[in-house]
Amino acid sequence: MEKGRLEAFSDGVIAVIITIMVLELHVPHGNQLADLVPLLPKFLCYVLSFINVGLYWNNHHHLMQAAKHVNGRILWANLHVLFWMSLIPVTTDWMGENHFAQTPVILYGVVLLMCGVAYSFLVKALIAKHGKDSVLAQAIGRDKKGNISVLLYALAIALAFISSWIAMGLYLTVAAMWLIPDTRFEKIIYQKK
Amino acid sequence: MEKGRLEAFSDGVIAVIITIMVLELHVPHGNQLADLVPLLPKFLCYVLSFINVGLYWNNHHHLMQAAKHVNGRILWANLHVLFWMSLIPVTTDWMGENHFAQTPVILYGVVLLMCGVAYSFLVKALIAKHGKDSVLAQAIGRDKKGNISVLLYALAIALAFISSWIAMGLYLTVAAMWLIPDTRFEKIIYQKK
Amino acid sequence: MEKGRLEAFSDGVIAVIITIMVLELHVPHGNQLADLVPLLPKFLCYVLSFINVGLYWNNHHHLMQAAKHVNGRILWANLHVLFWMSLIPVTTDWMGENHFAQTPVILYGVVLLMCGVAYSFLVKALIAKHGKDSVLAQAIGRDKKGNISVLLYALAIALAFISSWIAMGLYLTVAAMWLIPDTRFEKIIYQKK
Amino acid sequence: MEKGRLEAFSDGVIAVIITIMVLELHVPHGNQLADLVPLLPKFLCYVLSFINVGLYWNNHHHLMQAAKHVNGRILWANLHVLFWMSLIPVTTDWMGENHFAQTPVILYGVVLLMCGVAYSFLVKALIAKHGKDSVLAQAIGRDKKGNISVLLYALAIALAFISSWIAMGLYLTVAAMWLIPDTRFEKIIYQKK
Repeated sequence: MEKGRLEAFSDGVIAVIITIMVLELHVPHGNQLADLVPLLPKFLCYVLSFINVGLYWNNHHHLMQAAKHVNGRILWANLHVLFWMSLIPVTTDWMGENHFAQTPVILYGVVLLMCGVAYSFLVKALIAKHGKDSVLAQAIGRDKKGNISVLLYALAIALAFISSWIAMGLYLTVAAMWLIPDTRFEKIIYQKK
Repeated sequence: MEKGRLEAFSDGVIAVIITIMVLELHVPHGNQLADLVPLLPKFLCYVLSFINVGLYWNNHHHLMQAAKHVNGRILWANLHVLFWMSLIPVTTDWMGENHFAQTPVILYGVVLLMCGVAYSFLVKALIAKHGKDSVLAQAIGRDKKGNISVLLYALAIALAFISSWIAMGLYLTVAAMWLIPDTRFEKIIYQKK
Repeated sequence: MEKGRLEAFSDGVIAVIITIMVLELHVPHGNQLADLVPLLPKFLCYVLSFINVGLYWNNHHHLMQAAKHVNGRILWANLHVLFWMSLIPVTTDWMGENHFAQTPVILYGVVLLMCGVAYSFLVKALIAKHGKDSVLAQAIGRDKKGNISVLLYALAIALAFISSWIAMGLYLTVAAMWLIPDTRFEKIIYQKK
Repeated sequence: MEKGRLEAFSDGVIAVIITIMVLELHVPHGNQLADLVPLLPKFLCYVLSFINVGLYWNNHHHLMQAAKHVNGRILWANLHVLFWMSLIPVTTDWMGENHFAQTPVILYGVVLLMCGVAYSFLVKALIAKHGKDSVLAQAIGRDKKGNISVLLYALAIALAFISSWIAMGLYLTVAAMWLIPDTRFEKIIYQKK
């Protein structure tokens, strides 16, 4: 099976996810700068989630670039990732609406954690299809960054019971970790070509 | 006529359908875990509908993979499938809002039934174009699974007059039946190549 | 310039337009069949607009299939079509909300008329690029069907001042006229290949 | 890395951005022509933003047409452009809701300015990847039009403190400047081929 439509469909879903989040930034009633202040927590949440969704799209792009074929298991593993990602807008909104209260921050972390776990299932499904010696498997390697992300999200959820700000700091740390250009794939794929 | 744009447009519509459903999961007013409890029926409906829309996307992917050409009839048969699928979000929402009350559960079943019927028309339009001896026709065979789904949906609608939970059980059964990897297409298409 | 992205972008915009219309079918408050009755006019408007948007997508598909190149003028002519199409959801909603009252019915007609006019500009821009002897120009011919549609929409708007039902009848007539498989393009394009 | 998915994802995001703006044109309560009058400022804002988003899509199309490869930096520079574009609908809405009041008009200008700045970063990232002697670099040249746009937006923001109508005039000027067919890319790219 070809991978083209899996990419196109994922692009579509991620494009809608990343864009509908902005719908929650409801226009303030007044027309002064001060009227925007209450929107600030929501806006910051939007920025964080935009980066997180952007990260997943980037990683998905890199991953599928290295893939050659897909099968039924990969299609469902991919839908599973998209399912958890589809929950990012509503949890982002809840977190912003409640000014980073504990429970919404924890739930946001749970959704990010599940995105990470689902993504690792997708990686496994792709390696299973392409073989351990494939370019794809080598490019991913032991997927340290992905595993560290999942661990940090789990840690963030645990520490949110002490303070939701520690959790927020860890969410930002994971995002920053990925924003640093990921040359892992680029190097290996283009050496092979 | 080439099939590329039919696939791209369908991907777009299905991507929006699967994503706007999450807009109905309105953020609760409180910030406690208990505040999420009333959302639970809606969330479960969302999961079921996400799987159902995912199923149709998967099947559509498999089906069009085997197709070579499209014509006007196929374009309209495809739009007909998308029309019924576009009603999934609103009926999902009605069902969740009313905690699986009888009428909304029946209506949800009617929409799923019509999706199934419309899909079988699409299959017929594709076979008519490609011929009974085509790879596509062989891959689909007698489309047992599709026919069983339509029958089970009809049965679910009838039994919902006794209890909406029987109907829900049958909706889940159909979803589970399709979640089991569908190797029918993969086998036949790749033998031929 | 290649036409791929013009097609992809148009597919995306049309997919969102056709799908967000369903967001206006707000879930009724009750859970009985009778609670759906007030939704009926909106639902019928949705069906009509789904067909109209579907028609434009189909025609756009046929048209661009015959096209080989695009230029700046074509890109803007295409955005112009999409602009008027983007007003279909809101005018559909207004018409359904007001049970086919005169002014909303007229406005709906104006939007459809402008879609038709904008579409004819797109056709002209494409012919100007490809030449009068091109496959595209021959496939379109004198575009009788397109011109008749624009005329019927203008007539519908005028007659709506007598009765909005006459206008509705004419909107349905145009839709029906296009639903009849359009073999014009298919014949000529495939003879040439 | 290939550019296909960057284009497809950008098309998806821009398609959603351009279409969800129309969601803010809420249906009026009455059914008379007079009931549409209060919508007029919002409608004019919609038209302006539709053109602005259309401009970015056109420019993006031209730019990526000339590009051959993408890397991590380009992916993020592109997401950065999309981030600022995603704020166009909400600021458009705020401006229309408040009938071109000073603060909303300034904020709208800031978002357009940031889109322009982000776009120039994307251009730089692409030139860095393709080299100063590449077709892409030559096609862009010194990107006078892009730089003038950014300057005019900055000027508009400053002059909005005197009158928001001067700012609006400058926003329209920039849009008009780009609507004039941009033959810069077309000429150079097609000379080279």
